[in-house]
Amino acid sequence: MANLSAVLYAPEDLRVEDRAVPEPAAGEVQVAVQAIGICGSDVHYYEHGRIGPFVVQHPMVIGHESAGSITAVGSGVDPGRVGQAVALEPGVPCGHCPQCRAGRYNLCPDVKFFATPPVDGSIAQYVTIPADFAHPVPAGVDFRQAAMAEPVSVAVWAVRKAGLAGGESVLVTGAGPVGLLVGQVARAFGAGAVTITDLNDYRLSVAGRLGLDARRADSPVPGSFTALIECSGSTAALRAAMPLVQRAGRVVLVGMGADEVAFDVPLIQNRELWVTGTFRYANTYPTALQLIASGEVQVDPLLTHEFPLARTEDALRAGRVEPTALKSVVRPWA
Amino acid sequence: MANLSAVLYAPEDLRVEDRAVPEPAAGEVQVAVQAIGICGSDVHYYEHGRIGPFVVQHPMVIGHESAGSITAVGSGVDPGRVGQAVALEPGVPCGHCPQCRAGRYNLCPDVKFFATPPVDGSIAQYVTIPADFAHPVPAGVDFRQAAMAEPVSVAVWAVRKAGLAGGESVLVTGAGPVGLLVGQVARAFGAGAVTITDLNDYRLSVAGRLGLDARRADSPVPGSFTALIECSGSTAALRAAMPLVQRAGRVVLVGMGADEVAFDVPLIQNRELWVTGTFRYANTYPTALQLIASGEVQVDPLLTHEFPLARTEDALRAGRVEPTALKSVVRPWA
Amino acid sequence: MANLSAVLYAPEDLRVEDRAVPEPAAGEVQVAVQAIGICGSDVHYYEHGRIGPFVVQHPMVIGHESAGSITAVGSGVDPGRVGQAVALEPGVPCGHCPQCRAGRYNLCPDVKFFATPPVDGSIAQYVTIPADFAHPVPAGVDFRQAAMAEPVSVAVWAVRKAGLAGGESVLVTGAGPVGLLVGQVARAFGAGAVTITDLNDYRLSVAGRLGLDARRADSPVPGSFTALIECSGSTAALRAAMPLVQRAGRVVLVGMGADEVAFDVPLIQNRELWVTGTFRYANTYPTALQLIASGEVQVDPLLTHEFPLARTEDALRAGRVEPTALKSVVRPWA
Amino acid sequence: MANLSAVLYAPEDLRVEDRAVPEPAAGEVQVAVQAIGICGSDVHYYEHGRIGPFVVQHPMVIGHESAGSITAVGSGVDPGRVGQAVALEPGVPCGHCPQCRAGRYNLCPDVKFFATPPVDGSIAQYVTIPADFAHPVPAGVDFRQAAMAEPVSVAVWAVRKAGLAGGESVLVTGAGPVGLLVGQVARAFGAGAVTITDLNDYRLSVAGRLGLDARRADSPVPGSFTALIECSGSTAALRAAMPLVQRAGRVVLVGMGADEVAFDVPLIQNRELWVTGTFRYANTYPTALQLIASGEVQVDPLLTHEFPLARTEDALRAGRVEPTALKSVVRPWA
Repeated sequence: MANLSAVLYAPEDLRVEDRAVPEPAAGEVQVAVQAIGICGSDVHYYEHGRIGPFVVQHPMVIGHESAGSITAVGSGVDPGRVGQAVALEPGVPCGHCPQCRAGRYNLCPDVKFFATPPVDGSIAQYVTIPADFAHPVPAGVDFRQAAMAEPVSVAVWAVRKAGLAGGESVLVTGAGPVGLLVGQVARAFGAGAVTITDLNDYRLSVAGRLGLDARRADSPVPGSFTALIECSGSTAALRAAMPLVQRAGRVVLVGMGADEVAFDVPLIQNRELWVTGTFRYANTYPTALQLIASGEVQVDPLLTHEFPLARTEDALRAGRVEPTALKSVVRPWA
Repeated sequence: MANLSAVLYAPEDLRVEDRAVPEPAAGEVQVAVQAIGICGSDVHYYEHGRIGPFVVQHPMVIGHESAGSITAVGSGVDPGRVGQAVALEPGVPCGHCPQCRAGRYNLCPDVKFFATPPVDGSIAQYVTIPADFAHPVPAGVDFRQAAMAEPVSVAVWAVRKAGLAGGESVLVTGAGPVGLLVGQVARAFGAGAVTITDLNDYRLSVAGRLGLDARRADSPVPGSFTALIECSGSTAALRAAMPLVQRAGRVVLVGMGADEVAFDVPLIQNRELWVTGTFRYANTYPTALQLIASGEVQVDPLLTHEFPLARTEDALRAGRVEPTALKSVVRPWA
Repeated sequence: MANLSAVLYAPEDLRVEDRAVPEPAAGEVQVAVQAIGICGSDVHYYEHGRIGPFVVQHPMVIGHESAGSITAVGSGVDPGRVGQAVALEPGVPCGHCPQCRAGRYNLCPDVKFFATPPVDGSIAQYVTIPADFAHPVPAGVDFRQAAMAEPVSVAVWAVRKAGLAGGESVLVTGAGPVGLLVGQVARAFGAGAVTITDLNDYRLSVAGRLGLDARRADSPVPGSFTALIECSGSTAALRAAMPLVQRAGRVVLVGMGADEVAFDVPLIQNRELWVTGTFRYANTYPTALQLIASGEVQVDPLLTHEFPLARTEDALRAGRVEPTALKSVVRPWA
Repeated sequence: MANLSAVLYAPEDLRVEDRAVPEPAAGEVQVAVQAIGICGSDVHYYEHGRIGPFVVQHPMVIGHESAGSITAVGSGVDPGRVGQAVALEPGVPCGHCPQCRAGRYNLCPDVKFFATPPVDGSIAQYVTIPADFAHPVPAGVDFRQAAMAEPVSVAVWAVRKAGLAGGESVLVTGAGPVGLLVGQVARAFGAGAVTITDLNDYRLSVAGRLGLDARRADSPVPGSFTALIECSGSTAALRAAMPLVQRAGRVVLVGMGADEVAFDVPLIQNRELWVTGTFRYANTYPTALQLIASGEVQVDPLLTHEFPLARTEDALRAGRVEPTALKSVVRPWA
């Protein structure tokens, strides 16, 4: 039995290795991974060997947007789950710190998250995970779609932070994979209108096909908004969008960009805006999978490229070389 | 210039009279009413001459679900609004009591509400109303649909009370007009699944056509729910549904029925349920009109009957005599 | 080494036994218990052998309001904690079910709670508990006071449920130990005024000494309230108090009494009241201990009786035979 | 009958004039003003003739922190209120815009606010105001204290924005009048511990006397906080304090300073902080007066200087020339 895995040794040094097949411990399941989406963070680790304070100091399997089928279960787990298709929630919190106790398990300081050093990720043929982080995939959803429950979770969490009361007008800046999902989730969660901006016409065309009001970020955006969800990481986009937010509006910072951004404090005060940011997500997977299953969130238009595990490096480079790349998927068994 | 109006003198004594055409005061608009929906409360006043402490002591025009077009404006109102199609929010609060100040203007003790004694209602050819309670109707929405912004507002308010976070499972008891709207609004505001129950197979068939999971109330309803929105007014329905609500779930009482209902207090405590009720609505009209315009809430399947103003009594009786009656509309100019 | 424990065999059959001293497992601490408060539930188990569905089928140590000092630690726990004074949070949740994940660990269906069958309680010389449920006691708080962190937690949780925004007027029905603590916590958390009612003049006199506005429940209570926290378990008290709650007010049901209570549904609807209940507490211990340490919550006036472990039965009977009994404390080493 | 008033003509050009005594219109009261506190905004208008976009283009009475006694009432107001001591809420909103309807009347774009151009303020012997903005002063509170209901309202609003759940640890940066009030309100509303920082030792000594944990802002502040309320307007203070805020903490920007402040966006994201600002207040006056009356908020230590109306300029300059000046009060009838 083999376990081909995509292991990052150093920047631009990714090796496909045959690692030991992990056995499920008590409370865990063993999963044959069938599809893994490539995230910007994977690309960042590949190119730079680090993200901020997280440094790849030892060879590490990358990848964390994954789905597969259960091949074995550890003690205490229902053996009837073998064969079940599951999406893997990649961050396992400690369960007993104050953040976990308060329901904010995404903020657990001791979380173990796939492909955040030194924890191995999921671009591999087999992984193990606690059973309750392997979420059953609804009928009609394939593995590639199920792997998207991870970025859809990012979107669900961001939209929940925006606190939509139904009928709100939402502005999403950035029509990359996360922005396109945030726009769809906002609509599914009751936004009356969703406008999305970008500088990339291809991405805007995808947004338009998904039914969003797509606008170029370098032209004035008409209207005003009760919520802004920033998904581009662009300081310019954020600063241009803030004045479009209505009094008592909410601003959710999802995109990662500059470490410091100058905010217009009197604007925040005079309009009593709420500004927050998101760090991963909590309690989102079942909802994310449900949104994919119902078609309210379409992930297929994002799944532009696909590679076998042996070509993981090409998957990591696709965003740079393919103008129409949105999301690449790695298939471990292809 | 005439102003035919449907005036209730006493139980079962409704007269169509030609009243003076009201002139708009400062800040008001005059509206030629084009469509008025009949509500259960109109029927109740017609049959009993009162609802609880509200007694029809003097002849009173009935009706409060109305839309029309602006025919004149009072001082301080943009004359450009003449000709505008508007939906009329029927309750005008005082604007300065503690409830109004806190944003809960539906709870204003001094609200003046169409057809709540002694305030005249809107089954008339002309009414006046403060300009900001005449909400512009979006393109593509006709007057009959626009009049439904009132019951849709009831539904928007009820669903907001349920505090949906997206992806929740909602149970609606009662598939009358309000329940059918609540179910649709819940779905539009992000419910992952909406089940609706009733004993009337015709109503269940309408619910099914609207895409809701329609179930007979006298059979066990499978599953459990994070929110229950009670729209039947039936004590039996409420008591059967409460145990289906999950821990920390919310129960919103919309339907009017018995004055006293026995609640299972340990159930409320052990599951920490939140139970509340709704009284009309606040800040809902623009959202209600938007939901109708987008088609997310379909009102046409509810609009089963239509009558000219001269036949208002038939409209009031339709619910009793027509098994498939859901909502009757009166047309003042037909 | 001995471990004297108060073991309930059957109704009115309580035996003091010398049980094995429990060894701390990984992540646990061993605690020499120094004080345990007697709760109404202990008395109920003693008198009836059950509370609702929870039946004492095997001999069970009773008691759950406890504090002591750490005598040993299991692996993974800081050995420096030996000797530390701690208050014991008696319910240990599973940590990974949906309720735990959402921060509502008090609603965990798999919680193990001291003295809820079949889990042994803490009227014993030694117990073990996960280290993070043994909360450090602030300086200046003695063991008897620290044991009161449990009922103070009940009060903190109830007041948090009431969602006080500062400056609110709160009515507490029932001036038993829980009501007296709820009243004090409400004041500490910003209530502008706290009224408390009871039929027992002795309890009202204690309430008055604690600075609460104490009123007889059989006389009209003047004023109206933005929140009602029901701590008597009396249906009559609840029904008399509900009409005193203002529009948009909150009603929190803490006291346990009749299984069914008739609610005035139009009152809930017309005022849009929120009604909920509490089940234990979550994330309250540090705050409860802080309130005791600061003196904002005084527990000494409640600690009316004290017994050595050998006289646990007398402690359980004190509430019946002593007119001025509020809270009895058992001392295992006395 | 005279009406001496402090009228600002241009920067540093303040004239005391005898203006006409205003008559109360319908719904209004006429008030003989007895005490007015000087706010930083009054000083700013006096020194610069403007605050941001608000420019004094015509002579304007300044002042907005005021209390007095009712001397006459307009039609529709209870004549029994003549003689009543009242604190004047200085901003009168329109009552029907979307912000007013939503309960956020402080964000009403059409608010008329004392001494915000072109609206006259209240350093005058007589003013008129809508009756419901003249809040009855509780027994035992004098006019100088009652005038402080305005800055206490600023503090109540800021603390409400911080969303304290009871038992939280709060950091207040800036021990000027607003910071000293915010610290006291936070404690009154349930904060378990309140730390306040400044560079001014005199102000820190006042804070210490008020029972707050006073710390120099140029030394490391120990501990971490669940809420930060910034009252200094200092960019340095804000930037130093942000890293002390715990995960999921809240940051409320009250102090006015630089128009642009660089925020550490990854900090906001990784900790999911909530950042907001305050603009005046809504629904705070009764609570503010209650806090003053109960002594939970002490305003006397802030009231360091007092001047007759004829010496209003000295009152405006006191903060510059008196090292121990915190708040000056003008007495129109002295």
